[in-house]
Amino acid sequence: MRINTLAIVGVGLIGGSIALAARRRGGAVRIIGIDRQAETRSQALRDGTIDDAYMDLTAAACADLILFCTPVDTIAAGVIEAATHCRPGTLLSDTGSTKAAILRDVQGRLPSGVEFIGSHPLAGSEKHGLAHASAQLLEGRLVIVTPPPDSTDTALSQIRDFWTVLGARVQVMDAEEHDRALAFTSHLPHLLSSALAGILPPELYDLTATGFRDATRLAAGQPSLWSAIFHANQTHLLTALDRLDEQLQRFREALRQGDRAALEALLQQGKKVRDVL
Amino acid sequence: MRINTLAIVGVGLIGGSIALAARRRGGAVRIIGIDRQAETRSQALRDGTIDDAYMDLTAAACADLILFCTPVDTIAAGVIEAATHCRPGTLLSDTGSTKAAILRDVQGRLPSGVEFIGSHPLAGSEKHGLAHASAQLLEGRLVIVTPPPDSTDTALSQIRDFWTVLGARVQVMDAEEHDRALAFTSHLPHLLSSALAGILPPELYDLTATGFRDATRLAAGQPSLWSAIFHANQTHLLTALDRLDEQLQRFREALRQGDRAALEALLQQGKKVRDVL
Repeated sequence: MRINTLAIVGVGLIGGSIALAARRRGGAVRIIGIDRQAETRSQALRDGTIDDAYMDLTAAACADLILFCTPVDTIAAGVIEAATHCRPGTLLSDTGSTKAAILRDVQGRLPSGVEFIGSHPLAGSEKHGLAHASAQLLEGRLVIVTPPPDSTDTALSQIRDFWTVLGARVQVMDAEEHDRALAFTSHLPHLLSSALAGILPPELYDLTATGFRDATRLAAGQPSLWSAIFHANQTHLLTALDRLDEQLQRFREALRQGDRAALEALLQQGKKVRDVL
Repeated sequence: MRINTLAIVGVGLIGGSIALAARRRGGAVRIIGIDRQAETRSQALRDGTIDDAYMDLTAAACADLILFCTPVDTIAAGVIEAATHCRPGTLLSDTGSTKAAILRDVQGRLPSGVEFIGSHPLAGSEKHGLAHASAQLLEGRLVIVTPPPDSTDTALSQIRDFWTVLGARVQVMDAEEHDRALAFTSHLPHLLSSALAGILPPELYDLTATGFRDATRLAAGQPSLWSAIFHANQTHLLTALDRLDEQLQRFREALRQGDRAALEALLQQGKKVRDVL
């Protein structure tokens, strides 16, 4: 089913990239952008990323698909508010990095005939803002779709089709399972990058090379966005931290004992995984 | 003072790159390669990386500068052995990632008039082998030079000049200070990358994106090389791990308390450093 009007809430790196890809690949007939920043609205209009720009969620009333590309801690409230303006048959989704809390908060709060299904495109960047948006950002990337237990088949295939038309691959997953997985594959790496960068004494800045830069690239992300993600995925992130801590203890023990064979085995374990990716 | 004959021991990524840079920039009149691998020797001869290839260290007798580009746990023994074949005035150096243990092991073991000064070019890669060598690898990079207390000014300026001619910047530093710094800027990031990759369950491989790949890029390095580096820098690496652990505890506490302001402050601390680099 072709989307007539697509509303993008939050026209930044992700929202802008989705708009550009939808335009290029015919994912929607008309694309409207909803953003609080006047500058973002006029930039998005000027460069043709969107057809119309609005400041608040009432504009979503005319959309068939409303996609929230805003910080995770604002999504549920936005979805609930936008839904009050929607006609039956409207589908709402998002691009947030955590899924269970949003689904929980939205659950039972939508008018009849209006559905919310979570989405998470695994296509980020330490950059942000519309200026870095690209129609290619989603190409070949995985989008995890997390439907609530009561979602309809129509809504699920609509969101699947939407992402597929945009060039992404889709995997349907339970929201809790998503959060448990992403704690390991995304949130823990981000936390570690940040911790590693955070402890570097200023006098050592000049002694870093590409290795340090690779390992800390994620630390450049926006602290307000990531603190919200960490907070929303608190339990699973703490579990992932525990797993990491056990592995660090193994390294520590091997170092203390001067056990080179054990050190090499631990490094081999990491290399084996890295070489597969 | 122009180097007449340069001997490179270990013609891999680093040794090969140094040979190529020395050739291109006139860093030496003649370059000989010493490598145990017959295949490496013939490849390096075939592509003109070196002028002559030898299997063992007796060949170093004719060199003015002998550069060990071999794993850190083999350097000291190699330097001591090569030095027995050298005439007075010969300078030996290396490219190892740790410096204090090598300097300590070599101390007092060289014939009169033969000197060893440590070097560490901060220009690695998770790749290895001659096939990835490049004359540009050292360009603009920092080489840390760690002279022993009894080094002569002649030897020190000779090694400084050598790296400078190759396009690198040189910083002279105490070996122990080097090891303490590199524990933070290189060895800890490597250990973390490896620990992070090592704990990823196979069922989550498909759910990784560029963030995970950046954060674990270093884990692809050779386990035997890195276990030797970790082992040689045991004390400082354990200290760096303690610092990291304290920072991870702060994250953990903020997560447990649901303290978003504290999480954001910790992330801001990491971003501030990262943005400077």
